[in-house]
Amino acid sequence: MKQLEHPDPDEMTLTGVLGALSDPVRLSIVNQLAGCDERGSSEFDCDIANSTLSHHLKVLRLAGIIQHRKEGTRCFVSVRPDLEKAFPGLLASVLRFHQPVQN
Amino acid sequence: MKQLEHPDPDEMTLTGVLGALSDPVRLSIVNQLAGCDERGSSEFDCDIANSTLSHHLKVLRLAGIIQHRKEGTRCFVSVRPDLEKAFPGLLASVLRFHQPVQN
Repeated sequence: MKQLEHPDPDEMTLTGVLGALSDPVRLSIVNQLAGCDERGSSEFDCDIANSTLSHHLKVLRLAGIIQHRKEGTRCFVSVRPDLEKAFPGLLASVLRFHQPVQN
Repeated sequence: MKQLEHPDPDEMTLTGVLGALSDPVRLSIVNQLAGCDERGSSEFDCDIANSTLSHHLKVLRLAGIIQHRKEGTRCFVSVRPDLEKAFPGLLASVLRFHQPVQN
């Protein structure tokens, strides 16, 4: 199975990261990932269509925030360590203010 | 002269703030403001048209990041204290990684 494209660390930009985080669903996804090693890409607690979830995961991946790992027919997602190297502490500073949407 | 609209503090959102900061010009404007009390709205070091600058200032204002103060025919801009109250430390965490564009 083909691995998905990830930007090089020197292609990651502060504005790109902020833009990718400027959406409630994407912020929720990253918040869920921040507390675990990795998660199956279909295991997020988001009440949205699979195609919409895929779109949000792609935006986060292309900004350098998350990484995808394919294993057989499954896909696993995690926060990309390069993000912390490029912008140490930034993600924690943002997630500190994240308030999960009440259903 | 009519004062411009500013959102109530409870209308400010984390995603709105991140979105407004996810642009190199707007990040540069906020970075220039962070080091001073206030600045004339035409005194920014940005190589862009006045109309474009006005647009960026409006986006920042409607996100709750900056405030406008009109005095006679002049307009002054500053970082809005409500931002720090709503998201303490967030702006500093972001600006830490801002690198001015090299001309």
